[in-house]
Amino acid sequence: MEKATRRQSKDHNSRLVLKTIYGNGQVSRADLARSTGLTRPTVSAIVAGLLESALVSEIGPGPSAGGKRPTLLAINDDGRHLIAVDLSGDEFRAARLNLSGGITTRVGLPAAGLRGDAALDAVYRLVEPLLTPTATPLLGFGVATPGLVDPQQGIVRRAVNLGWVDLPLRERLEERFGRPVHVANDSHMAALAEYTYGDPPPSANLIAIRIGRGIGAGVILGGRPFYGDGFGAGEIGHVVVDPAGDLCTCGNRGCLETTSSVRAILKNAAAADRTGSVLAGDSVPTWPAFIQAVKAHDPVAVDVAVAAGRHLGAAVAHLVGAYNIHHIVLAGRVSDLGGLLLDAVNAEMHQRVLPAMAEATTVRFTSLADGRLADIVTLGCSALLLHRELGVV
Amino acid sequence: MEKATRRQSKDHNSRLVLKTIYGNGQVSRADLARSTGLTRPTVSAIVAGLLESALVSEIGPGPSAGGKRPTLLAINDDGRHLIAVDLSGDEFRAARLNLSGGITTRVGLPAAGLRGDAALDAVYRLVEPLLTPTATPLLGFGVATPGLVDPQQGIVRRAVNLGWVDLPLRERLEERFGRPVHVANDSHMAALAEYTYGDPPPSANLIAIRIGRGIGAGVILGGRPFYGDGFGAGEIGHVVVDPAGDLCTCGNRGCLETTSSVRAILKNAAAADRTGSVLAGDSVPTWPAFIQAVKAHDPVAVDVAVAAGRHLGAAVAHLVGAYNIHHIVLAGRVSDLGGLLLDAVNAEMHQRVLPAMAEATTVRFTSLADGRLADIVTLGCSALLLHRELGVV
Ligand SMILES: [Zn+2]
Ligand SMILES: [Zn+2]
Repeated sequence: MEKATRRQSKDHNSRLVLKTIYGNGQVSRADLARSTGLTRPTVSAIVAGLLESALVSEIGPGPSAGGKRPTLLAINDDGRHLIAVDLSGDEFRAARLNLSGGITTRVGLPAAGLRGDAALDAVYRLVEPLLTPTATPLLGFGVATPGLVDPQQGIVRRAVNLGWVDLPLRERLEERFGRPVHVANDSHMAALAEYTYGDPPPSANLIAIRIGRGIGAGVILGGRPFYGDGFGAGEIGHVVVDPAGDLCTCGNRGCLETTSSVRAILKNAAAADRTGSVLAGDSVPTWPAFIQAVKAHDPVAVDVAVAAGRHLGAAVAHLVGAYNIHHIVLAGRVSDLGGLLLDAVNAEMHQRVLPAMAEATTVRFTSLADGRLADIVTLGCSALLLHRELGVV
Repeated sequence: MEKATRRQSKDHNSRLVLKTIYGNGQVSRADLARSTGLTRPTVSAIVAGLLESALVSEIGPGPSAGGKRPTLLAINDDGRHLIAVDLSGDEFRAARLNLSGGITTRVGLPAAGLRGDAALDAVYRLVEPLLTPTATPLLGFGVATPGLVDPQQGIVRRAVNLGWVDLPLRERLEERFGRPVHVANDSHMAALAEYTYGDPPPSANLIAIRIGRGIGAGVILGGRPFYGDGFGAGEIGHVVVDPAGDLCTCGNRGCLETTSSVRAILKNAAAADRTGSVLAGDSVPTWPAFIQAVKAHDPVAVDVAVAAGRHLGAAVAHLVGAYNIHHIVLAGRVSDLGGLLLDAVNAEMHQRVLPAMAEATTVRFTSLADGRLADIVTLGCSALLLHRELGVV
């Protein structure tokens, strides 16, 4: 009992020191003692352990505070690597990252239509090329899937597109690869990425809405993802915004995914009267063609995009009423629509929520740079893994 | 520094012991040592202090565990009294309660149309009859108002009906009455009452929706009220559910309050074709007359009630998508509509949210007994005060 307590306290202090180094960039042992409240000998002993385990390295002398120049410590970015797996699209994607979230290798595998065991096999095949032996130890895996995911137990409760019901994905992957695995929902991880690596939000709360093939939101409360009783918090893609709308795969009619997803936008463009439009023709336009039409102010494309934004704005209004979180971020392929989409979302939101609350709310695109946009789920998986395994973010 | 820490630790331990007594009913000092992990001498010293301050009393000998029969301790219900103030209706209401939430005295004061200083004066007049000197010390005040309320600073940011903007209500009442005051939003307090005094929810999360003259929800996350960045979490009364609906006091059209509040229901009943209805006539029906008509299966009344429930169900669907909280409770005067309302809400919610999430969600009326229904906000104020001042709930 006593021993366990001492051990826990040692672990706790070690995490605290590591987190302080992670959060501050370059610090001396004296800085660490000051900001953690631990004694100098305790800090020195912990740092010795972190140096030995290669999580931290000495990067040279810092400025003198009067006496001898202190040695600065920093996270050893390449002391571990991480594998992040994003199963949210038609292409399964995985990446190897270093400790500061830098992506060093990417792999992908077409997965459209794969379900059940075939989808799981594809995950194994996807990850294997990243497992070539290197000198750098593997911290573990962070995996994001669509659907309802229990992130405590690592069980995919229900992922319709993948045909997974109550799949113990963490257990399967840990058995196969022998390293720690953490599993979560893709939109929840997008929100965690924005919170961890994006512009700092005005409070410790934010909502991120990811709009691509599907639509889902992730909610950060007090700096951590909020999952809900059934792990479906933020599952707004299948909330109805147009009761007279199209039949959805979920069985209901007029879900947000039927009005504002990339697929819905293209379908609506195809169904519109395209006479005189640059999109004229019989086939469903591609997303790049649609974006180009919007940028050329093609009236058909603009109308369809604005309608999608209006429906999204209606859903956002309900999120504002429910959470009153001031910082709402959009991510995913619809970002290509730019200000046209944002204006439509904001206009509709303002017409649908208490004016004082609408005025205090900012809806914008993710602050993660363009190159990182497609990696938002990957970055979230990395943040989850760093939090769970090292306590640093 | 050392002294402050010791003092804090003493306070913390004392709160822990008091909370354990509050939560367990009747306990011995030995029980307390076991369940708190504190030493017997520490427990005895703390209990001596609690007995002296009259928060706890000895209620007699308990069953022997082999040796001498231990003395049982319990909360001294009448060791303090509390004043709870509910400013959410046309009548301002206040009550005196004992430490276990039992209401001993009630007062009320008509307040329709009172605004600004006149409304504040009415609060002073309302409370004064409850301040007659008694031997029992007053723990403090818990006050609930409609609108956006900062419960940390005790400032009413915006209460449209009362004409209050940035009113430091806590400061005003503390100056006047010289006792601690805690201020919060009425719907947030209804949710806290349900959580504290109602049937235990399946998780530490619940949503309570209060529907009377206005409509608002309160959200409990992890056992505590969630307020949102701008204190407006759960402010669903002014989220639009019928864009072609009636103009609302907030300036938008078709807010939930215009479709499903008591006032909206009566207005819609008056606007309906009442030929052959028991509600036939020129005047707006009263709420009791409307309820009677519903209970007599009057088709006009039933149609209007079901329409109100349907719109409420649409708003509930968005809450389910946003929070995925399984336990949703309705309170307020619409409870009079009974199963007819619940069925309409549930039917609409099921058509508007992912089937797996709808099935896992239960919408029911508050579990607080009939007599307590009208006191739900009062009970929430009492729970807030007990939490903030004594740490017991
Ligand atoms: Zn759907
Ligand atoms: Zn309104």
